[in-house]
Amino acid sequence: MGRLIARRAVLRVTPNGVTRRPDSIAVEEPLELRVAGKPLAVTMRTPGHDVELAHGFLLTEGVIGSAADISTARYCDSVDADGRNTYNVLDVGLAPGVPAPDPGVERNFYTTSSCGVCGKASLDAVRLKSRHSPAADPTQVSAEVLAGLPDALRRRQQVFDRTGGLHAAGLFTADGDLLVVREDVGRHNAVDKVLGWALLQGRIPASGCVLTVSGRTSFELAQKAVMAGVPVIAAVSAPSSLAVELAEECGLTMAGFIRDGSMNIYTRTDRILLPESAPATPRDPAFATP
Amino acid sequence: MGRLIARRAVLRVTPNGVTRRPDSIAVEEPLELRVAGKPLAVTMRTPGHDVELAHGFLLTEGVIGSAADISTARYCDSVDADGRNTYNVLDVGLAPGVPAPDPGVERNFYTTSSCGVCGKASLDAVRLKSRHSPAADPTQVSAEVLAGLPDALRRRQQVFDRTGGLHAAGLFTADGDLLVVREDVGRHNAVDKVLGWALLQGRIPASGCVLTVSGRTSFELAQKAVMAGVPVIAAVSAPSSLAVELAEECGLTMAGFIRDGSMNIYTRTDRILLPESAPATPRDPAFATP
Repeated sequence: MGRLIARRAVLRVTPNGVTRRPDSIAVEEPLELRVAGKPLAVTMRTPGHDVELAHGFLLTEGVIGSAADISTARYCDSVDADGRNTYNVLDVGLAPGVPAPDPGVERNFYTTSSCGVCGKASLDAVRLKSRHSPAADPTQVSAEVLAGLPDALRRRQQVFDRTGGLHAAGLFTADGDLLVVREDVGRHNAVDKVLGWALLQGRIPASGCVLTVSGRTSFELAQKAVMAGVPVIAAVSAPSSLAVELAEECGLTMAGFIRDGSMNIYTRTDRILLPESAPATPRDPAFATP
Repeated sequence: MGRLIARRAVLRVTPNGVTRRPDSIAVEEPLELRVAGKPLAVTMRTPGHDVELAHGFLLTEGVIGSAADISTARYCDSVDADGRNTYNVLDVGLAPGVPAPDPGVERNFYTTSSCGVCGKASLDAVRLKSRHSPAADPTQVSAEVLAGLPDALRRRQQVFDRTGGLHAAGLFTADGDLLVVREDVGRHNAVDKVLGWALLQGRIPASGCVLTVSGRTSFELAQKAVMAGVPVIAAVSAPSSLAVELAEECGLTMAGFIRDGSMNIYTRTDRILLPESAPATPRDPAFATP
């Protein structure tokens, strides 16, 4: 696993006694992303899949729209005190004609001058910026498939199994087939790595796909799904209010609390194929969502 | 609960049927923090305790050292499309003689020019910047008290109980008495609100206290503990490698995986009073930590 896992001795305290033993810990290291030599962002991440991370980040921040917008991606000569390359600085070159990002790109989604700082302005910024929209995607996915995604994701979490310290994101087909899974100490990084992989595979917009995340759905994760044209996002835990609002505005199906065969569907319920035994279906007018 | 919880209809799918029912969702809204009128940072947070959040953020980023370093804190006239104050922009005035922060304050911990971008540089930056150090704090805490902290925190999570969507942080005495608990959609915000509360209460450096967090311990959270002079951090889940390294360098006791009466102690085990039945104690040379 290389730099993904660090080993160190810990004191293990249990009701039955105390032992000193080796433990596996998830590695966290800074990554500085540069565009044409200029620092753009620093994120604390699990090393590995950094080129995917850069692609996913630049895609979901609206800097690039396709893999062809990036001409080069290479580690810079950032060295540590011993003169070794840290592999913690990645420089990306943009293709001719692709405008360099505003250095304040990280804030672009949060503020607009038109109406102060509010949730609505954040939603508007995503809508204005996104090159893809999940709204018209005709994908449907059965509740049964959705119910199985968290376990399928969990089974592929190799580093989590050893450290308990990583978030995961995975991209699945609507039939529940796993396309890719990535783990990271940062939830947003795991999603960026997955969507960067999809971009490099020519799968953006990610029509017909379900993005599954191991934790909660924040505005930031919903934003990334919308920017990549993902029609369905499925999470083990709760969404935030702003994540649900963004999903509603952009036509993203949002599922949460997927546990023990049950789940909540927050938006665009028409994409969910319900169990035949269900007493009501989303075609029922009472289930219509805007 | 005001703006902490939003209500909306969700489609609830279970193996026994499908219902449409109201659900409680944790509110997420952007907060722009300004210092002397200049935007410094935007964070997605749960509204409320914003003045504490600002104090905690500025403390743990090294901008201020005491509550007296802030002269004023007020919501700006940021209005939404209907002309209502969003309460999402907070302007902080610094006391005379307190230098305004570098606009790039958010990155200061991650990069130094001396040795590229690496974990070691991140650790050095915290050590150079911190006005407080937990290293000399003589606090001791029993494993029994530590084992009970996650449940004590959980019992006070009012919004989580209704939404399942919030992280929590709490400050406890070494005897296990709860001083304050804060919930937020962002882990770092929950910690900033707790430490900002402590600053306003004259409790920084937080000698003799245990910072408890509901999830994992990242570098960022360990950094905040060190910057506030907290001697012990206790988490329900795993730490990252860089969080453990920072704890070791700065003399912070780090406990993780506190579940079912058991836990891992990663650093400064000498602060932990072990159960009498334990077959070994941290006084044993084999348990010495640097």
